[in-house]
Amino acid sequence: MMMIVGVIGAGQLARMMIPAAVELGIELRVLAEADGMSAGLAAVGVGDYRDRDAVLAFADTVDVLTFDHEHVPQEILRELVDRGVAVHPGPDALLYAQDKLLMREKLTELGLPVPDWARVENSDELAAFLSDHGSRAVVKTPRGGYDGKGVRVVRAADEADDWFAALTEGDALLVEELVDFSRELAQQVARRPSGEIVSWPLVETVQADGVCSEVIAPAPHSAGRLADVARQIAVTVAEGIGVTGALAVELFQTTDGRLLVNELAMRPHNSGHWSMDGSTTGQFEQHLRAVLDLPLGSTEIHDEWSVMVNILGGPVEGTLADRYATAMSQHPSVKVHNYGKAPRPGRKVGHVTAVGDDLDDVTYQARAAAAHFAD
Amino acid sequence: MMMIVGVIGAGQLARMMIPAAVELGIELRVLAEADGMSAGLAAVGVGDYRDRDAVLAFADTVDVLTFDHEHVPQEILRELVDRGVAVHPGPDALLYAQDKLLMREKLTELGLPVPDWARVENSDELAAFLSDHGSRAVVKTPRGGYDGKGVRVVRAADEADDWFAALTEGDALLVEELVDFSRELAQQVARRPSGEIVSWPLVETVQADGVCSEVIAPAPHSAGRLADVARQIAVTVAEGIGVTGALAVELFQTTDGRLLVNELAMRPHNSGHWSMDGSTTGQFEQHLRAVLDLPLGSTEIHDEWSVMVNILGGPVEGTLADRYATAMSQHPSVKVHNYGKAPRPGRKVGHVTAVGDDLDDVTYQARAAAAHFAD
Repeated sequence: MMMIVGVIGAGQLARMMIPAAVELGIELRVLAEADGMSAGLAAVGVGDYRDRDAVLAFADTVDVLTFDHEHVPQEILRELVDRGVAVHPGPDALLYAQDKLLMREKLTELGLPVPDWARVENSDELAAFLSDHGSRAVVKTPRGGYDGKGVRVVRAADEADDWFAALTEGDALLVEELVDFSRELAQQVARRPSGEIVSWPLVETVQADGVCSEVIAPAPHSAGRLADVARQIAVTVAEGIGVTGALAVELFQTTDGRLLVNELAMRPHNSGHWSMDGSTTGQFEQHLRAVLDLPLGSTEIHDEWSVMVNILGGPVEGTLADRYATAMSQHPSVKVHNYGKAPRPGRKVGHVTAVGDDLDDVTYQARAAAAHFAD
Repeated sequence: MMMIVGVIGAGQLARMMIPAAVELGIELRVLAEADGMSAGLAAVGVGDYRDRDAVLAFADTVDVLTFDHEHVPQEILRELVDRGVAVHPGPDALLYAQDKLLMREKLTELGLPVPDWARVENSDELAAFLSDHGSRAVVKTPRGGYDGKGVRVVRAADEADDWFAALTEGDALLVEELVDFSRELAQQVARRPSGEIVSWPLVETVQADGVCSEVIAPAPHSAGRLADVARQIAVTVAEGIGVTGALAVELFQTTDGRLLVNELAMRPHNSGHWSMDGSTTGQFEQHLRAVLDLPLGSTEIHDEWSVMVNILGGPVEGTLADRYATAMSQHPSVKVHNYGKAPRPGRKVGHVTAVGDDLDDVTYQARAAAAHFAD
C-alpha cells in the first residue's frame, strides 16, 4: 500500500508525526519553510507553501499530502486535487479553517450552535451589532489569525477602524458576540476518507493571552450529556464539511450551560497533545492513519486523567535540555516533549504531560515540571 | 548540555530509539552497516563497525556513543575510551556481553546463581562434563552467537567436534548444564553513569526455535519474593559489571523454583519492547536518558498486563503495511511496530503489543493481531 506521507510545514505538529511514522513504517517527507525548523529531521526540501511550483514538485514525491498548518492557498490545493494528488484534508474542508466568515456561515447552515455573529464591512455595521449585544463584541479578521492574533475585543465601533481600512474591496470582518463562558473545551475527532470517525474524550483547555497553556483530559464534570453533545457537534462538523484527518472543535461552555463552537482546526491540535501519552492512539498516529485511509485506532484512555502543560517561551538562557536534570529528577513520571525550537518569549517550545488517577496530583506534576523550563 | 547520541548499528533497536530521541530533542546519529537498514532514517553514514577508522570518525561527530548490538571489537572500544569518547556501555561491561565464558566467570565471581558450567577445550573435557550432568548439556561458542545461533544441545561428547576443530589456540567452548526450567524470564534495568538504577517488572519470555516470540509483562505469578530476587540479580549484574544504559538479564526459572542467569544483553532488548506501550518510560527512551546520564524515568505500568508478540518472517508476499487494513480494523487497541525491514522467513520484522487488565484478552489480542502479518 501507499506509505509516503508528505507534510507541508515543518513546525512541531509535523515534528510530532515523526515518531508515529517511524513506528508504523510510514515514510514522512516534510516541506519546510526554512532550514532548522522543528520538523527538520524529516525535511526533504525547503520551499514556500505559497509557491505553486514548489508545492507541486513536492507533491510529486509523496502518496498522500497533509499539513502542519492550514495556510496553503486554495488555488494551489485545488490544482493538486485536479492533478490527482490525495490531499487530506482537502480544499473543500480547509476552506472553513482558512476563512472564519465562511466557517460561521457553514456552521450556521449545519444547524450547529455558534455565538451570534455578523459579516461587517464598515464601522456602521459594527456599531449596529454592538448596540444589539451590550456594546461589546469580538472582531476577527477572517483569514490569517492564530494563537490570539487577528482577534480583538471591542467596546466601540471605531476600535476596528484600522482593520476596516486595510480590507480589500468585497472583504469584510467577522464580528461575534462576546460570549459569557465558564470555560473553554475542545472536542477532537479523526475521520478517514472512507468515512470512519473516532473521537477522543472532551477536554478542557486553559488559555493565557490567547494561547493554549493547559489541557485537562477528560474535561472535569463532562461525563454524560455534555460529552455526548460535544461529540455530536464534532461529528456533524467532520461529516458536514468532509474533514479528513484530525479535527479539533474549540468550544465555549457558556455560563448558562450551552456549548457554542468557537474555532475549528483541521490538523493535529494543541488540545490533543495529551493523547500521545494518555490515549491508546495519540493524535499524530491517528492523523497519519486517517490520511492514509487506514482503520483508526482506539481512543481509550489508560489513566483517569491527563494534564498537558505547554512550555511557553522556555528558559531565558540556554536550552530546554539544560533543565532536564532538575525537571526529570523531580518528576520522573512526567513525559517531556521538546520541539527543538530556540526559546523565545511566548513561543511554544515544548510541552509536558502527566497522567494518573488523582487530578490534583496530575495537575501539580504537570505544572511543576513545566515550571522547570521557565525562568 | 550534550545531546548528540551516536548509535553504532542500524537495526530495529537503533530505529526504535528515533521516536524517543525526537520527543526529547536528542539528535540521534546512526552508523549503519549498509544502506536501507531499519534505522536508515537516522543514518548519517555507512561503515563497518569493525573498521577502526570508520568508527573513530563517526565518534568524532557525537557527544555519546552507544550501540544497536554488542559486536564492536574491544580494541576499538578501548581506543575510543582512551581518546575521551563517552562510550555507554563501556568496554569493561561489554566484554561480558561479547564473551559468554567471561560472563559465566564474572557472574560466578559475583556470587550470582548460574547453571553449572565449564570451560572446555576438547571433547574429553566435554565428556567429563556430560558424565557429571546426566549425559546432556548445552555447548555454546563464547562469541558471536545470538537468537539461538552458536548454541547446541549435545548428548554425546563428539557432537561438538566441528566447533572444537574450529577453535583457535587458547580458545575454548562454554558448556552448561541443560537446565530443567519451567519457564524463561527476563529482568530489565537501566543504569546511568552516575549510578542511578531503575527496574521494570520481571517479565516472562516465550521462545520459538531459540528466538523470542512473546513477552508477558509482568510475568504471571511473579509478585513478591520472585520479583525481588530477579531485581536484585539484575542490580548486582549492572553494578558489578558497571553497565550503563539498558541491561536485560535473561533468567531460567527452574522446575524446583530457583532463578538462574542465562544470558545478558547490554542494550535495549526484545524482552523490553512491551515497555514502549505498557510503561511510563519505554526502554528506548530510558536507554537514551541513561547514556546521556540524565535522570531516569518512571517504570510504572498503566495497565495490569502487557503482551508483546513478535512478527517473525512477515507475509510471504507484499509488506507488513499491506496487512494494516485487516489487522487494524480487527484490533484497534493493539500497537503495531513495523521495523521497515523486508519480510524473510524467521526474521524479526516488527512486533505488536496489547495492554489491558485481563490477561486472557490481552494475550488473545496480541497474538491475533500478529497473526494477520503471517501467512
